[in-house]
Amino acid sequence: MGKRSSRDIRSESRLDVLHALLSAGTSTRGELAQVTGLSIATVATIVQELRGEGLVADAGSSALGAGRPTTMLRVNGDRGRILGIDVAETYVRAIVFDAALEQVGSVEVPMDESLPSVGSVTESIVRAVDTALSETGVDRAHVLGAGVALPGLISAEESADAVAPRWAARNVEVLHRLRERIGLPLVVENPLKAIATAELWFGRGRTASSMVIANLGTGVGAGIVLEGKILRGATHSAGEWGHAVLVLDGRSCRCGRLGCVEAYVGAPGIQQTLREIAPDHELARVPQREFIDGLARTHRESGGDPVVEEVLERTAHYLGVALGDLASIIDPEVMMLTGWTAWALGDDLVDPTKAELQRRAPAGATTGVELGVSTVRGSSVAIGMATLAFERFLGDVGLSTTRLPLAL
Amino acid sequence: MGKRSSRDIRSESRLDVLHALLSAGTSTRGELAQVTGLSIATVATIVQELRGEGLVADAGSSALGAGRPTTMLRVNGDRGRILGIDVAETYVRAIVFDAALEQVGSVEVPMDESLPSVGSVTESIVRAVDTALSETGVDRAHVLGAGVALPGLISAEESADAVAPRWAARNVEVLHRLRERIGLPLVVENPLKAIATAELWFGRGRTASSMVIANLGTGVGAGIVLEGKILRGATHSAGEWGHAVLVLDGRSCRCGRLGCVEAYVGAPGIQQTLREIAPDHELARVPQREFIDGLARTHRESGGDPVVEEVLERTAHYLGVALGDLASIIDPEVMMLTGWTAWALGDDLVDPTKAELQRRAPAGATTGVELGVSTVRGSSVAIGMATLAFERFLGDVGLSTTRLPLAL
Repeated sequence: MGKRSSRDIRSESRLDVLHALLSAGTSTRGELAQVTGLSIATVATIVQELRGEGLVADAGSSALGAGRPTTMLRVNGDRGRILGIDVAETYVRAIVFDAALEQVGSVEVPMDESLPSVGSVTESIVRAVDTALSETGVDRAHVLGAGVALPGLISAEESADAVAPRWAARNVEVLHRLRERIGLPLVVENPLKAIATAELWFGRGRTASSMVIANLGTGVGAGIVLEGKILRGATHSAGEWGHAVLVLDGRSCRCGRLGCVEAYVGAPGIQQTLREIAPDHELARVPQREFIDGLARTHRESGGDPVVEEVLERTAHYLGVALGDLASIIDPEVMMLTGWTAWALGDDLVDPTKAELQRRAPAGATTGVELGVSTVRGSSVAIGMATLAFERFLGDVGLSTTRLPLAL
Repeated sequence: MGKRSSRDIRSESRLDVLHALLSAGTSTRGELAQVTGLSIATVATIVQELRGEGLVADAGSSALGAGRPTTMLRVNGDRGRILGIDVAETYVRAIVFDAALEQVGSVEVPMDESLPSVGSVTESIVRAVDTALSETGVDRAHVLGAGVALPGLISAEESADAVAPRWAARNVEVLHRLRERIGLPLVVENPLKAIATAELWFGRGRTASSMVIANLGTGVGAGIVLEGKILRGATHSAGEWGHAVLVLDGRSCRCGRLGCVEAYVGAPGIQQTLREIAPDHELARVPQREFIDGLARTHRESGGDPVVEEVLERTAHYLGVALGDLASIIDPEVMMLTGWTAWALGDDLVDPTKAELQRRAPAGATTGVELGVSTVRGSSVAIGMATLAFERFLGDVGLSTTRLPLAL
């Protein structure tokens, strides 16, 4: 029933201090106490523990008024390196971060297969990690951990246990193989939990306590944060909003079922909307990213294109209704859009979606919900996974009791 | 960010012990330690505190083996009375419970108006409470508390603040008037939170840590329990699954929007399905409850009725898809159906719905989800509200730190 000991609370306080320091860049003990709501004495103790592990360092001192100078603190980026690995459907991206979670280097390895096997996924990850480390000149011994985000799309053939939920079975197998191939402490999560973590540490989650982060790309899903914690779900599959139904018995979804949210607001779904309106439009057959960029560009051009306007209008309708469902069920404080579709279309999509969401508001539930585009850019999946690997490292050195279910 | 102190943890342990004792009826300190996972010393301390408040009493002793006899404990029902009040759309039911949450008496007062005002709702509640107390011969001074479940259907005219979410504004106003009229400690919640509480204390929630309780009656909604705690939502409106969209731009819902889940699986929605199939059917125009009972009876008769079979089949399709959406987003361990439609149709609805839910399972998420009909019968709303009032009382006497947002 989710019992927590005072040890958990101490560990949470440590994460809060580190979290606040990462957000601020540099900070004093007093400021950290103010931001975290902890006492100055507690903050001082925690800072001492974090310094003991080399995670926090001095960043000079600031003379405030007439008093004696106050020591500024920062997270010590040189404490080590952390890898965040985004395994997408067509590529593997490995990003090297320092211990202050600043990006040091990035590598992308393509994956050709449309439904990658456990073996090919493993090989691509290994190659991405090796290349990233050698290109940035990082010694393996200096890596604090690696976090790998695995989507639920690895083929079933090589699964060790076809009865267990696909995600868990497949990813346990990939993790098993990675453990043999990469000599690094690993954590594995699904991309939805990764983007939620990124938003929690570096985005709107720094101040909001409950939020939904809707990821719009080829696939669609939602990271859910409640009381500052990521909702994982009983089988580790919470947030599969992309496969909730928007239109009963509607469009075929690539998951094999009908009418899913993803089939309407995933990039290929938006393109299908355009094809339904104008099958011969110049954007009807171009690749996904080119299509989304084309929509954004055409919409912003003077004159515009009635087909593109109709596509954006229908998409805002679909998205507003689908987000309204999440709002009705979860009732979050904040909803953030993320992913490359959201970044490309931005407010051109957010404003009409917000209007639709307000119209749909059930019994006032979403009247006050805040909707925006996430400020966490770049690869929020890789950033989130590096953060999870960092949390895991903190656990290893006794600074946190965070339990990650699929950690090695 | 949901910080909890060690005081919260002690308070949670007290609730756990009381909870375990209520479930068991009678129990020993050793058994309570086993069930709650607390040490025997902690249980002994808590039992002493609860005895100090007259909430726990001896229930004889049991001689186990050759050792000295062990004291059996029970919750002391005579400690006082608790009222659970279910404000439905056509009636107010007030149930009197003893402090062991056993039902002592029940009164139902009809409400005629189709869209009751703040004033008429208040009057009906006052009348139900007065009648229930006088019929059971209970002195007001002996009542530990009253819990009132208010649905979001009170008309807006008398609302103090039309900008705030309707639920909160209306119910605060009702609460305000009740406080003047009833001299009892009050808590107010919405019915979804009440049924979740009932399931948590007396149903499947005693052992499951995450669950969704789908309430099927005239209206439709879901209580959501995560890690043993009820999800309330940022504006106190979580679980409004009945107004999530099942069919984009589909049937008109009484909430004013289109295609809501409730318009398909609420009792009037199921009847509309029958009218779509056979407008002149004998069940097409009968009152709601008679309609649902008629469906159940006809289905169980030998021979059967193809129209009724078609209605049940389509309803299972609608319900399976709509529950599948909840499962995709929340990923609970258990889903329970409750409410009079679920009780009347029982397994006749559950079995085909389960099949539909399995077919819809996204990426294995719901493969293992348990679906059943709640064993909490009678008025789970009133039981849940009495339980919330009891928790509130425990807070008043310093035994719990549970915070109820709309408590007086």
